Amino acid sequence: MRDVVEIGLGKTAQRGYHLDDIAIVPSRRTRDVDDVSTAWQLDAYPFRIPCVGHPSDATMSPTSAATLGRLGGLGVLNVEGLWTRYEDPTKILEELSGLGEDARTTRRLQEVYAEPIRPELITERVRQMREGGGTVAVRVSPQHTLALAPVILDAGVDILVIQGTLVSAEHVSTTDEPLNLKEFIADLDLPVVVGGCTDYKTALHLMRTGAAGVIVGLGGDEWSTTESVLGIRVPMATAIADAAAARRDYLDETGGRYVHLIADGDLRTSGDIAKALGCGADAVMLGEPLSLCDEAPAGGAWWHPAASHPDLPRGAFGVAEESLGSMERLLYGPADEPDGQQNLFGGLRRAMAKCGYRDLKEFQKVGLVLDLER
Amino acid sequence: MRDVVEIGLGKTAQRGYHLDDIAIVPSRRTRDVDDVSTAWQLDAYPFRIPCVGHPSDATMSPTSAATLGRLGGLGVLNVEGLWTRYEDPTKILEELSGLGEDARTTRRLQEVYAEPIRPELITERVRQMREGGGTVAVRVSPQHTLALAPVILDAGVDILVIQGTLVSAEHVSTTDEPLNLKEFIADLDLPVVVGGCTDYKTALHLMRTGAAGVIVGLGGDEWSTTESVLGIRVPMATAIADAAAARRDYLDETGGRYVHLIADGDLRTSGDIAKALGCGADAVMLGEPLSLCDEAPAGGAWWHPAASHPDLPRGAFGVAEESLGSMERLLYGPADEPDGQQNLFGGLRRAMAKCGYRDLKEFQKVGLVLDLER
Amino acid sequence: MRDVVEIGLGKTAQRGYHLDDIAIVPSRRTRDVDDVSTAWQLDAYPFRIPCVGHPSDATMSPTSAATLGRLGGLGVLNVEGLWTRYEDPTKILEELSGLGEDARTTRRLQEVYAEPIRPELITERVRQMREGGGTVAVRVSPQHTLALAPVILDAGVDILVIQGTLVSAEHVSTTDEPLNLKEFIADLDLPVVVGGCTDYKTALHLMRTGAAGVIVGLGGDEWSTTESVLGIRVPMATAIADAAAARRDYLDETGGRYVHLIADGDLRTSGDIAKALGCGADAVMLGEPLSLCDEAPAGGAWWHPAASHPDLPRGAFGVAEESLGSMERLLYGPADEPDGQQNLFGGLRRAMAKCGYRDLKEFQKVGLVLDLER
Amino acid sequence: MRDVVEIGLGKTAQRGYHLDDIAIVPSRRTRDVDDVSTAWQLDAYPFRIPCVGHPSDATMSPTSAATLGRLGGLGVLNVEGLWTRYEDPTKILEELSGLGEDARTTRRLQEVYAEPIRPELITERVRQMREGGGTVAVRVSPQHTLALAPVILDAGVDILVIQGTLVSAEHVSTTDEPLNLKEFIADLDLPVVVGGCTDYKTALHLMRTGAAGVIVGLGGDEWSTTESVLGIRVPMATAIADAAAARRDYLDETGGRYVHLIADGDLRTSGDIAKALGCGADAVMLGEPLSLCDEAPAGGAWWHPAASHPDLPRGAFGVAEESLGSMERLLYGPADEPDGQQNLFGGLRRAMAKCGYRDLKEFQKVGLVLDLER
Repeated sequence: MRDVVEIGLGKTAQRGYHLDDIAIVPSRRTRDVDDVSTAWQLDAYPFRIPCVGHPSDATMSPTSAATLGRLGGLGVLNVEGLWTRYEDPTKILEELSGLGEDARTTRRLQEVYAEPIRPELITERVRQMREGGGTVAVRVSPQHTLALAPVILDAGVDILVIQGTLVSAEHVSTTDEPLNLKEFIADLDLPVVVGGCTDYKTALHLMRTGAAGVIVGLGGDEWSTTESVLGIRVPMATAIADAAAARRDYLDETGGRYVHLIADGDLRTSGDIAKALGCGADAVMLGEPLSLCDEAPAGGAWWHPAASHPDLPRGAFGVAEESLGSMERLLYGPADEPDGQQNLFGGLRRAMAKCGYRDLKEFQKVGLVLDLER
Repeated sequence: MRDVVEIGLGKTAQRGYHLDDIAIVPSRRTRDVDDVSTAWQLDAYPFRIPCVGHPSDATMSPTSAATLGRLGGLGVLNVEGLWTRYEDPTKILEELSGLGEDARTTRRLQEVYAEPIRPELITERVRQMREGGGTVAVRVSPQHTLALAPVILDAGVDILVIQGTLVSAEHVSTTDEPLNLKEFIADLDLPVVVGGCTDYKTALHLMRTGAAGVIVGLGGDEWSTTESVLGIRVPMATAIADAAAARRDYLDETGGRYVHLIADGDLRTSGDIAKALGCGADAVMLGEPLSLCDEAPAGGAWWHPAASHPDLPRGAFGVAEESLGSMERLLYGPADEPDGQQNLFGGLRRAMAKCGYRDLKEFQKVGLVLDLER
Repeated sequence: MRDVVEIGLGKTAQRGYHLDDIAIVPSRRTRDVDDVSTAWQLDAYPFRIPCVGHPSDATMSPTSAATLGRLGGLGVLNVEGLWTRYEDPTKILEELSGLGEDARTTRRLQEVYAEPIRPELITERVRQMREGGGTVAVRVSPQHTLALAPVILDAGVDILVIQGTLVSAEHVSTTDEPLNLKEFIADLDLPVVVGGCTDYKTALHLMRTGAAGVIVGLGGDEWSTTESVLGIRVPMATAIADAAAARRDYLDETGGRYVHLIADGDLRTSGDIAKALGCGADAVMLGEPLSLCDEAPAGGAWWHPAASHPDLPRGAFGVAEESLGSMERLLYGPADEPDGQQNLFGGLRRAMAKCGYRDLKEFQKVGLVLDLER
Repeated sequence: MRDVVEIGLGKTAQRGYHLDDIAIVPSRRTRDVDDVSTAWQLDAYPFRIPCVGHPSDATMSPTSAATLGRLGGLGVLNVEGLWTRYEDPTKILEELSGLGEDARTTRRLQEVYAEPIRPELITERVRQMREGGGTVAVRVSPQHTLALAPVILDAGVDILVIQGTLVSAEHVSTTDEPLNLKEFIADLDLPVVVGGCTDYKTALHLMRTGAAGVIVGLGGDEWSTTESVLGIRVPMATAIADAAAARRDYLDETGGRYVHLIADGDLRTSGDIAKALGCGADAVMLGEPLSLCDEAPAGGAWWHPAASHPDLPRGAFGVAEESLGSMERLLYGPADEPDGQQNLFGGLRRAMAKCGYRDLKEFQKVGLVLDLER
């Protein structure tokens, strides 16, 4: 049934589908929107909405991460971003928000991220997030996990997110001792989220490391240039559904360990969120959408962490014309723009009601239609 | 034969097609255009053309609904629109016709629709329509049917349209007593049209409620934002053909009850109308196309009823540059624009003639070609 | 092997392909371009190139038709166009060449074509064409064939083209005695070309009328609005290949009568011409491309005959910015634009050489690749 | 498994895929970028990167070819270009860099290439390249190979590239004695690269001529007009994979002769390069991308050699707004534009690392996903 296509003699490719390629098909039942729950829980941490903040400096500061937490989501701070390189990065964030969408901006990003990470600032930022209330989570890259983990753990976070463009359970190196995720996670007593990944096998192997959650996707969006630079493109509907199959198989092989899938990529609207969950995700990681609210640290600018890579930047820089309102309004409405960018989780809740589902786990079974209109 | 695609391991989607994805294939016979009939009949009510006016304030006022009736179609007034909230909404309609296509307009729509419905105005509007001649039909939402039906029925309508974004035969609620469509319709002695719906099963269940007609589609058009907000997109060719299969099966299970299908969505041109009927619809519901004639109540402005939702608006607002002429010309020509927006039913009649068919029921068997050009 | 898709339950559609959807695949042999022949012959009339002029007033006047004949193609004059309605239509053609691309132009077209046809002018135009040299051919619509044929035949044409938007071998009418193509052609002793048609069955039936040539396609191009108005769209690659199958089957059933296929639609460039012939056409009918040369009667304006329909116009009006050169240059080069619009048959010849073929009949077997890039 | 589609009754087409239609799927392993090798070797000549300069005057001068050689790639000079027609073509190149993208430019190209080739300049250019260091390679067309080969061989090149729009192992001519590639190559004692070709059979036959390398593709890019003019379009992913199958079969039939595939077409970014190699190419031929560096001979102008054809030009002319930096930076970074046009082989190396591969031969097995998004 799976589309396996021979693109040339003896060379096959699996056919992949984007969230834009599919849509939700309402079933024969409808339900009151007030009877629908969007609650999500990761390990011991309950959330009102299945929303994880993308650990980008354009989206998550210690303050905005805490705000997201208070509003029912999970804020995540990047400990390799500006907040751990500068005592006070607000000036830099302000400067960045005024830049244009050209090559000079990339060079400026490369410059400001060339500043070294200061471990004591990690401690300080975690303290600030803790003060803000809500679940405390930070992101570290696989390359720096061994070096930075002691500081992070000492600082006392609730959830650790180990996230790189692509993370595998088996990194090969002839020079460094690579991170052994399985051993690393086994030694911790806090839930770890790892990713991104894009296929069944990698997702399954990451689950076997003991992670509580796996990130599916590379955070691709309209500003992403991963395909131009690396030739890698992730059809998210397929990636999520494949990872959901890995989750089922891992559940079976472990006799009951449920690993959460967090979709990261091509999510702009409440409709996109509904589709990602309908494909099997447990939660979504929102980057650019959260950069559009009043609380966004960079005043409406958006760049993916990969956009500041010193020799191979992989993401463009954009600045929104105006804020879409407070983070609360962005998440819960009311909307006064009909384009699905406001009231993100009110839209999700209504989609679930229109299809007659009560909770997110049920909604993963929603019917889908494939159409290739664009 | 049906395209069922595995979008990811264990997750399938039906492939759906839009009216734009298909086209009509003329058969080996042609026929004189004057020998072709576009007549349609719903219950005891005969119509010269299979045209139902979309119950939107941008299209249907008591006056324009009556005009459509006199011209051979079926006008439908929304009893939850401006005409039952205001003694005289013409000032507001005039104001709306001057607005731009931005967020302030959505806010203004939300404001003017916040005014409560006045039951006595329902009675008055039905009286006005009755005076205008033609079949009298009004639309009510499923949520307000139980509350408003007594007033509507007392006022004396010919046909009742119960229409929501999505209507199912089984609405679940823990707080309100939901509308039981089957019992409700059984108690009435006038024909009821219900919808919209998008799939075989819902269509079949709606037919089983005793409805005389079922609306297929959600009224989607280029201004619709249902997909961005809810993740729901309706490939109309597939939705109509699936509902036509439900009509056949219901005909068989009842030994002869024929339920009419009214297509609502992606209909702009006479070519679109021909395709919808060729897919199996009995009639079409026209919204935005009718907003472009001289008689349109809002002077060329168009917004879908869902565009004024108080916290989750789902439709943009557009204003046509100029009228395409009288409603009569729009429906019957002559056209002086070659784009299929004028002479809508003259175009349908000619398409039927080119394919050699005599009437609408025959034309539902017309050959189709699928091509994915756009 | 044929793609038959179920677009909805129980409703199927054949998948169709456009010339843009396919491309030619060179085979393992190449050939000198000077060894390639583009000669074509219809009945007793030999042609240097497989090029038929589209009987539109924008393309074919008595003079330009004769020029095309002298250059090795077949000019066809529309006897229901301006040249048989006006003693001297040059003023009108000049006026039209100055019009814009808006509704007023359609109205002006409708006006100038409202003038009645004067039979004596048919005689005069045929005389002029005869004087110009080359094969003399005129086009008449099926509706007017019985009325105008006597005049046309008396005037003495070589080839008669009976062309309407869609022509079937079985036209049904309750009011008029319809044209019986088979009997009509049997009574003539000159070759008749009929069309357009879009499918195997109609093509086969038209062949059985005794026609020497069948036109495949409806003359669709980027200015065509047949789909918007009638819902009919012709994927030309499929239409040509299907008609070629009808040609094969008819050849078999008659023990050797070969009916020529003339493709009419979506032909702008030498590459398009090569693809149409590669799909199985024997010749191409060129409309808009020939309106771009110095000899074009309307100074670079282009409108399809259907664009002037009195109540249902089906085609837009366009005016080229500048001529692409003489008709000779358009057909045979040299080109100084690299876009395939000049040197149309030099391009065809080179395509044949690159694929190693000697003549047009061989070239119909060329390999094709399908790709849906656009 | 191969998509063979019946586009019409009895007429089939193979489905072809572009590099844009596919993307790379990372596997479950990742690798340090410093452990990855992009080395390539053709016959006795080792290269640091699998990069061949396109023998166009816009890209390769004796100087820039030598620079590319020093940087680890293979420069190729066109001995039928401006450098062998003019003692000093720098003035002409300067003039061309100032031209616009219109028909006058094509005429000017036709003029400057009308100048005859001077054999003594071939000798001189080879001498200059030899002085510049690196491997010396020149391109000659199949038509002129017999005439120019003696001069070229006397001048002493390392590698000979026989390249035309389409080269077959069997060229048929009734007037000239055509080049017999097999005999010609057998008589030489230097490696020969031949092409382009687009299918399995032609590739296999070209391998059997004894060539060391075969060029796959026609150098198509966004400026190419081969399809408009000839109807030929090359879906590169399919063409490369098919040629790779020919390479495998030829390897088997010869018991071990490995012929290198050089992809030529639709290569703009490091992502495109990674995909071409992932489809099975051994190296890529870069035209327009190399015209964007400081060393480009025509100051950022780009035209394909076919764009100057005297009567059938097949390519447009473009001028870049500004240089992307030195050739070294273009090939090895650092990039400050995130669009994949800088650091072309750093991007390739990182793509290989993300997928866990060590060298180019291994990387040909990388997993692919097909998606038809654009």
